[in-house]
Amino acid sequence: MSTPIACLDTPAALVDIPRMQRNIQRMQQRMKDLGVRLRPHIKTSKCLPVIHAQMAAGASGVTVSTLKEAEHCFAAGIADVFYAVAMVPGKLPQALALRRKGCNLSLLTDSVAGAEAIVAFARLHDERFEVWIEIDCDGHRSGLAAQAPALLDVARILDGGGLQLRGVMTHAGSSYELDSLEPLQALAEQERMLCVSAAENIRAIGLACPEVSIGSTPTALSALNLAGVTEVRAGVYVFFDLVMRNIGVCQADELALSVLTTVIGHQQDKGWIITDAGWMAMSRDRGTQRQRQDFGYGQVCTEAGAWIDGALVTGANQEHGIISMEAAQGEALATRFPIGSRLRILPNHACATGAQFPDYHAVDADGTVHTWSRLHGW
Amino acid sequence: MSTPIACLDTPAALVDIPRMQRNIQRMQQRMKDLGVRLRPHIKTSKCLPVIHAQMAAGASGVTVSTLKEAEHCFAAGIADVFYAVAMVPGKLPQALALRRKGCNLSLLTDSVAGAEAIVAFARLHDERFEVWIEIDCDGHRSGLAAQAPALLDVARILDGGGLQLRGVMTHAGSSYELDSLEPLQALAEQERMLCVSAAENIRAIGLACPEVSIGSTPTALSALNLAGVTEVRAGVYVFFDLVMRNIGVCQADELALSVLTTVIGHQQDKGWIITDAGWMAMSRDRGTQRQRQDFGYGQVCTEAGAWIDGALVTGANQEHGIISMEAAQGEALATRFPIGSRLRILPNHACATGAQFPDYHAVDADGTVHTWSRLHGW
Repeated sequence: MSTPIACLDTPAALVDIPRMQRNIQRMQQRMKDLGVRLRPHIKTSKCLPVIHAQMAAGASGVTVSTLKEAEHCFAAGIADVFYAVAMVPGKLPQALALRRKGCNLSLLTDSVAGAEAIVAFARLHDERFEVWIEIDCDGHRSGLAAQAPALLDVARILDGGGLQLRGVMTHAGSSYELDSLEPLQALAEQERMLCVSAAENIRAIGLACPEVSIGSTPTALSALNLAGVTEVRAGVYVFFDLVMRNIGVCQADELALSVLTTVIGHQQDKGWIITDAGWMAMSRDRGTQRQRQDFGYGQVCTEAGAWIDGALVTGANQEHGIISMEAAQGEALATRFPIGSRLRILPNHACATGAQFPDYHAVDADGTVHTWSRLHGW
Repeated sequence: MSTPIACLDTPAALVDIPRMQRNIQRMQQRMKDLGVRLRPHIKTSKCLPVIHAQMAAGASGVTVSTLKEAEHCFAAGIADVFYAVAMVPGKLPQALALRRKGCNLSLLTDSVAGAEAIVAFARLHDERFEVWIEIDCDGHRSGLAAQAPALLDVARILDGGGLQLRGVMTHAGSSYELDSLEPLQALAEQERMLCVSAAENIRAIGLACPEVSIGSTPTALSALNLAGVTEVRAGVYVFFDLVMRNIGVCQADELALSVLTTVIGHQQDKGWIITDAGWMAMSRDRGTQRQRQDFGYGQVCTEAGAWIDGALVTGANQEHGIISMEAAQGEALATRFPIGSRLRILPNHACATGAQFPDYHAVDADGTVHTWSRLHGW
């Protein structure tokens, strides 16, 4: 389709394809230089053209956050799929069905109970699942400590149950709380070191643990050394966003996702521009709230994408965004941004904002707009 | 469909149909007692079975926040549709198409520029649009002051342009910041009084202004008197949520929307239960954060719906929810809530949480589950 941006209905989620391609190349090249494979987390885009661009650049497979994403990727010809959320009994039939169709789906667990459930189901169905064990490297969320006795128990249960222990994995989610290089490098090294040591602890009891998978966009872009690591998982780098910009791993001109919006009104006394991009378009994500620069619900740019200093989305109702202008001057606001004119908003969090839209409108270097559908729901 | 809850994949958005029906009856009866029509705002559910239940109970038409909702309602046989977001030139062709099909779609404006654009387009297409003028009753968002000279200018432009001035409307959005009855009653009276006075100011210059439309769920449920008002718009009452419970306009046992989730792990030292309902399921809405009781990302209940005191979703990643238990005691957590067991989460904001799901799973009094699809996108 070749609708120009000017003809799009608003709100619309725009993807800047050249920026996206540069982001993909940057991460892929970095992983190549560090000697590891890249397995992008596709929960950010949930969109096949984006995923195909990542695969074409050299990704070794994909990471998914739902089995629906796994099915979608497998149907599109991607066989090596890692479902990186701890497996529960209720989702095993769906995982089995994918394996039986030929998908090389691998699963995750971080508990004795979880491992036992996978083993019991696998026995019943005579399926040799590939399973990763989740390691907690920073107290952020899930996973077993690298030194936890339970780690070895889980490895023994999986191996004894006839499953393939694919490896260990971790995610340094606390990297989102940092914003300078040295702490990021230190966390990346902690992520690497703890995950490698977990693998070594398993190998020390005589079990195979072929893979070591780590990753988050901030640590992946900060790590100095990935010795012992076999693959990196990262997701949001494909689009980047204001949270990543505040962390310091990208520049403003690398943000590939924005929301096109129309000015629908003004409250001139307050210095407000009212738009049709409320929280339904931007999401309620306020990820920059506690960072070095709070962007409200997003940074306002011109329709062409130029950053407007001091213009932020400071309020959001369902279908109304409120832009506050620093030093806004009465009448000038409605003259400068008349009703019907358009703006673009850079989001705090690309994963959350993208999820509000059924489609991206992806813009080529020559201005051609492609409609790219994305997954919704589970 | 008759899937029992136990067979649903998680996360799933559950609607308790008996509670929903009681909520609908309560609001409809209240409006009847106050002598006004009810025009529900269907942006909360975006779901036809819910909207049909509201119409069956006596609603006079619907309020929508997008033209996609308008098209959806009209296709389902609902003709009186008020698009309650200020109209912009770019959306007029879509509005015209709906009118030409027979939809009694009415539009909104709050500016001279907006009114002039509608008039110009209407002339070009020989269409006599029905238009409301938005009044600002509390400084919350959009609208003209009831005493603003521009209000009369807009009324004259619409009338002089041959359009039908349907009436004035306002929304006391600041009611969400209150939490006790007297201030709510006072705001409801302010909403009524300012909107009625805006209508009177228009009538005083000799123009017809037949309708006065006000509403928000908190003010609609607090108003003592709606003299001069012709209709009320309210939306979230159909499901209610924790924000409304904190405001004081509903009880916990009236919340009709919840998210069914599965326990996927534990961090026993921290008193954490990890679930598969992260922010992708709950939304990032933290509407209770600044209210009298902060529920994090939601209040945890048993699978059957019983409130578990002191159990809140305190953290949310994309597909991981973190439930913190007050006074959680190590091992007991995994025994009480084992991996694979299920919980329900009551959301902060029903409009935002519902929007994360392609479907509701609506549960009858006898436990029968119906799949109700909802709109996504624009």
